[in-house]
Amino acid sequence: MPKPITSYKSTALAMSNIALIKYWGNSNEALRLPINPSISFNLRDLYTTTTVEFDAALERDEVVIDEAPAQGGAYARVVKHLDLVRGEPNATHPKFARVISHNNFPMGAGIASSASAFAALSVAACAALQLSKSEAELSALARQGSGSASRSVPGGFVAWRDAHAYTIAPPDHWALMDVIGVVSSGHKKTGSTEGHALAPTSPLQAARVADTERRFGLCEQAIRQRDFALLAEVIEQDALMMHGVMMTSQPPLMYWLPASMAIMHAVQELRASGVAVAFTIDAGPNIHCICESAVAPQVEAMLNAIQGVKQVLSSQIGGPAIIVR
Amino acid sequence: MPKPITSYKSTALAMSNIALIKYWGNSNEALRLPINPSISFNLRDLYTTTTVEFDAALERDEVVIDEAPAQGGAYARVVKHLDLVRGEPNATHPKFARVISHNNFPMGAGIASSASAFAALSVAACAALQLSKSEAELSALARQGSGSASRSVPGGFVAWRDAHAYTIAPPDHWALMDVIGVVSSGHKKTGSTEGHALAPTSPLQAARVADTERRFGLCEQAIRQRDFALLAEVIEQDALMMHGVMMTSQPPLMYWLPASMAIMHAVQELRASGVAVAFTIDAGPNIHCICESAVAPQVEAMLNAIQGVKQVLSSQIGGPAIIVR
Repeated sequence: MPKPITSYKSTALAMSNIALIKYWGNSNEALRLPINPSISFNLRDLYTTTTVEFDAALERDEVVIDEAPAQGGAYARVVKHLDLVRGEPNATHPKFARVISHNNFPMGAGIASSASAFAALSVAACAALQLSKSEAELSALARQGSGSASRSVPGGFVAWRDAHAYTIAPPDHWALMDVIGVVSSGHKKTGSTEGHALAPTSPLQAARVADTERRFGLCEQAIRQRDFALLAEVIEQDALMMHGVMMTSQPPLMYWLPASMAIMHAVQELRASGVAVAFTIDAGPNIHCICESAVAPQVEAMLNAIQGVKQVLSSQIGGPAIIVR
Repeated sequence: MPKPITSYKSTALAMSNIALIKYWGNSNEALRLPINPSISFNLRDLYTTTTVEFDAALERDEVVIDEAPAQGGAYARVVKHLDLVRGEPNATHPKFARVISHNNFPMGAGIASSASAFAALSVAACAALQLSKSEAELSALARQGSGSASRSVPGGFVAWRDAHAYTIAPPDHWALMDVIGVVSSGHKKTGSTEGHALAPTSPLQAARVADTERRFGLCEQAIRQRDFALLAEVIEQDALMMHGVMMTSQPPLMYWLPASMAIMHAVQELRASGVAVAFTIDAGPNIHCICESAVAPQVEAMLNAIQGVKQVLSSQIGGPAIIVR
């Protein structure tokens, strides 16, 4: 017998994730189906906590992100996502929800919050309505809010090919960390949603996509065998291929700053000296230094010595999105 | 009646050139036949003057570059080039030559000297032996020493598709300048000859090559119509495509420095404010700012204000390689 519903309220926690093989471009923009498979790991220490409460007293959805009421496009995107969950207009539960979301990482540090945000929103909204959804269903739902959010639903090392993402290795499979050199706190000029739509305008995108299975396979192998040298080679090439596409799209997306370049060279020099570190770069100027946990202090010191590095954030690998209460 | 040869000595001057559509990769490494067509203009104010004298008193070739005897690979490359000119071992002229070459631009400023050097060497060596060669033959000869040297033989705006380069517009067709932000005086870790050989290892190279005719056509059109907006778009995309290939080759070639990135952003901002300037980048960290002559002072001021810019060099468009005496 189902437990009687006394409140339509739930809180979920989902982590950000860092892609090792990048997703860039959609085969279906509306559904956010990716043009190429990607691999990531969850960032245990960079997460979003979201509470969703459907409340009969509300006359519209209310959305608060990091203590501020969401406006315009951000508000509309959350409402659109709630629409996917709340279903029919004549459902028995209250129609409108109060969404209160909090990121534990600084806003505007260039850490993508849409992945953790839409993963947490999906899990919390479904739990609030006591909808019984599998991890795959939740991942697919999160994907429709933000492509990379699909990867923040399963835990550990995660792959994403089509409708939903799935775990390929648990968090404790390999003690890696992401040590992030934050070089800009400014907002991106071009958001990811618009950026993905520009991908096909680069004459290099088709070649990048055609080569993805090779890189995906090498990255999977590197993770399975805990082969850092192989991982370093493939993730740097993959990130540089994505930025090669970005910089040659029309209009071009030039995300790197001088300090981004300084970090890339410093990472490659540090690795040449025997330290297990490699870089990857999302759609922004920050450099994510993927390293073995044992050398994280060295990597942090390297970053702190570079002019233009505003902040260093570190994270271990985390588990799946969870219902907190 | 041919004039009696009293001395086998000649001096030639050839300019450096800056490619607007880049050459990267060969279809035949030994012959330096390019995998894609390119477009450049000659740099009037950055040139090499080379004297070649075949002298019966010599027991081996002597090569002096910028007042220093050439050694090792540099010496061997000049000797190999002389071999292409001096022909049969039983020729009537003296076998060995004294080569004295001088660049008017600073060594190690990252300005490619091989283009002007092999163009000047080709013209001077043929003149010293009173070989009657057409511009096309001299261009093809220069090409075998250094691919881009083929473009320093004809004058003005130059195109190069296969054996030799040819003029597509005279120097005074369009008053453009190259204002170079020199950001490193260090020698390149990977020279161009090795770099060209790495081009096929990038998963993006084939797509870059396949798209070259489109860019070549747009660049030719921009030059013909003196359309700076079109020129800016196509040359920046072309240079970024080449660097996308370089950075994703195996091993990767990461030529840019922090100041390179700073200049790229500054150029794009300056252009957005209405100044006719665009960047291109050779196989190195220096940024070539292609601009209308009228705005060159503004571009120089912009470069001088950027941290990490060690020197600013400027050049107008120049004519063909010439015999000086």
